[in-house]
Amino acid sequence: MPATNADLFHKTRLLTPGPTAVPEAVLLEMAQPIIHHRTKQFQAIFKEVSEQLQRLFRTAGPVLTLAGSGTTAFEAAQVSLIKPGAKAITIAGGKFGERWQDVYNAYGVEQVQINVPWGDAVGPAQVEEALKANPGVSVVTMCHSETSTATAADVRAVAQIVSKTDALLLVDGITAVGAMPVEMDAWGIDVLVTGSQKALMLPPGLGMVGLGPRALKRLEEVKPGPCYNLDLRRWLASWKKNDVPFTPAVSLVRGLRVAMAMIEAEGLENVWARTAGLAAATREALEAIGLKRISTSPSDSVTGVFYPEGVDDSAFRGGLRDEYSVHIAGGQDGRGAKWKGKIFRLSHMGYVDAGDTLAGLSAIESLLREAGCVSVGAGAAVAAFAGAMA
Amino acid sequence: MPATNADLFHKTRLLTPGPTAVPEAVLLEMAQPIIHHRTKQFQAIFKEVSEQLQRLFRTAGPVLTLAGSGTTAFEAAQVSLIKPGAKAITIAGGKFGERWQDVYNAYGVEQVQINVPWGDAVGPAQVEEALKANPGVSVVTMCHSETSTATAADVRAVAQIVSKTDALLLVDGITAVGAMPVEMDAWGIDVLVTGSQKALMLPPGLGMVGLGPRALKRLEEVKPGPCYNLDLRRWLASWKKNDVPFTPAVSLVRGLRVAMAMIEAEGLENVWARTAGLAAATREALEAIGLKRISTSPSDSVTGVFYPEGVDDSAFRGGLRDEYSVHIAGGQDGRGAKWKGKIFRLSHMGYVDAGDTLAGLSAIESLLREAGCVSVGAGAAVAAFAGAMA
Repeated sequence: MPATNADLFHKTRLLTPGPTAVPEAVLLEMAQPIIHHRTKQFQAIFKEVSEQLQRLFRTAGPVLTLAGSGTTAFEAAQVSLIKPGAKAITIAGGKFGERWQDVYNAYGVEQVQINVPWGDAVGPAQVEEALKANPGVSVVTMCHSETSTATAADVRAVAQIVSKTDALLLVDGITAVGAMPVEMDAWGIDVLVTGSQKALMLPPGLGMVGLGPRALKRLEEVKPGPCYNLDLRRWLASWKKNDVPFTPAVSLVRGLRVAMAMIEAEGLENVWARTAGLAAATREALEAIGLKRISTSPSDSVTGVFYPEGVDDSAFRGGLRDEYSVHIAGGQDGRGAKWKGKIFRLSHMGYVDAGDTLAGLSAIESLLREAGCVSVGAGAAVAAFAGAMA
Repeated sequence: MPATNADLFHKTRLLTPGPTAVPEAVLLEMAQPIIHHRTKQFQAIFKEVSEQLQRLFRTAGPVLTLAGSGTTAFEAAQVSLIKPGAKAITIAGGKFGERWQDVYNAYGVEQVQINVPWGDAVGPAQVEEALKANPGVSVVTMCHSETSTATAADVRAVAQIVSKTDALLLVDGITAVGAMPVEMDAWGIDVLVTGSQKALMLPPGLGMVGLGPRALKRLEEVKPGPCYNLDLRRWLASWKKNDVPFTPAVSLVRGLRVAMAMIEAEGLENVWARTAGLAAATREALEAIGLKRISTSPSDSVTGVFYPEGVDDSAFRGGLRDEYSVHIAGGQDGRGAKWKGKIFRLSHMGYVDAGDTLAGLSAIESLLREAGCVSVGAGAAVAAFAGAMA
């Protein structure tokens, strides 16, 4: 892709880690005339979607679908499941882990924070120690894939530890579910949350909460916290009737059914393999032009690298966008690091293939070369990508 | 419309009071490829939408757009604006007024409840008395148009009373804004809330909160309640930068811009007049076939009547749906009344015209006649409707 895309037809390649590209079939489904939600027609759609989500989450338990963002869904789990007056262990190594700490701060929940350096994954032993040192802990929150640092944690190992205690494990799977192996029941995850705008290939607007047996029991035991809309008891009671307590985002739910059918047609394991393959090849490609990874435990859903010295983030991403119609993400600032302007990230989730990724990598290489930051021969990134995919 | 619609092409007429029909132009706009929300392109759309909403709300103040349902938006206003430990006056005469009482119950907020019989509107003098008897009241909640009882309240008069006190008036305008005259600034409404799926002609998934000067001041003064996503301070801070704190429902926001442009092309006053005209003619039509209104103060956004003796709600609405593809709403149960199975309601909001309404009324008349409940001559309802519209 030596020629820029700007003067042609602006074929956009959205490689941001959410929102991600939405398939045409899903866009058209959502453009169908609106239907009322208190109808058998919608209930049948909602039932099918709920079953699809159970297969996606790999769980026999309920997966609730809330109107709102992924943050809505995770906050609902946090506030609905904590025992009043009890402590939470909150694990953070990036912007989103820190957000779940902020949420409990807003509710005045006492926390044992485990803060790891940005780009590192939490060690399961750290969680084990914290649980031992704090016997009354009620929930543990963690990110499976920390989007801001492109880092994956070993949820399976942590779940094994937490499941031996009375604490519930709340997993932010917002950029994990549908992108990488997550086995809710087999691993013993108590609560698994995701959002519509990542691997599920939908516009933003829906958040999903899967509830395991221990979480369902907790919901019956604890008295509702200070919440109404976010009270998962309401959503669960309605879910049992293939319904929702408040007006649902009807068109998004319709679109979700089609997106999930696409995932099931490809086969979930094949989707995981495609995502992992794109991620591995992208890491090779970026390394081939001398870029350094931001993560010591890279996630397969998103790849992040540091900018070479002297590259201006906003000019670079602006150039990608304006000249090549390629959209990638920059960095974010948090308590653990200030990565705004320091890094860039691209997504491998959902409706994206090798062609899209090649186009993005080629544009990235071209712009960095123009900036004098690439010393290897032309095409090094795309050649490395193609080699890794072969 | 003597022939049923079932075997033809199932041209659906959605006359439910939310979700309402979405215009084709809006559906197509939402089917556009997804864009990322942290872009100038989205910011420009969001800025335009915010300005359109200010004109719709008739306010110079901010109108925040939240991802979620109308309930999300109203709960956010309730929890963000109440002074800690202070009382609220909560007015209910239907399912939604009762919901706002339930929300404050969930947060443990002490209430002075004003409960009027379902179908009646609150008297402004009742509010005045309650404010006098409870000097420390922090907020007053009320519905402008109580959808469950098809009843409109005199918000203007109540606002005049409340604005003389230190209490804020929180108005549920979910089936009022865009359907009937609401003048946020001129009437002195402190907080005005609406949702996307009513007169705004969009799918469900967005809630809007308009904030007047006294509400903005209150937001600065009170300390955040137990909330994170629903904390309006976050939304306001982002709004000032044409942004949102959490991933927005991008496609719905795009659709909103087109829907608002349609409203502005028609002219807001003309939209109000069309809605009021349809409502008045529908009342005449239903009265002409002997049906009794459920409201002593009928709203122009939705009309409700009691079923004649012996008509089964589910068979009747099922017949309308299956034979005529006409969708209307039934009744709801609450603390103040049990109206499930007793009433039916049809909407005049948004993308609906005289033709749609005539089709609905004709089908209603046909089915009631088949059930032996209509004693006047054939076509009485549609003739009365046409006469009233002439």
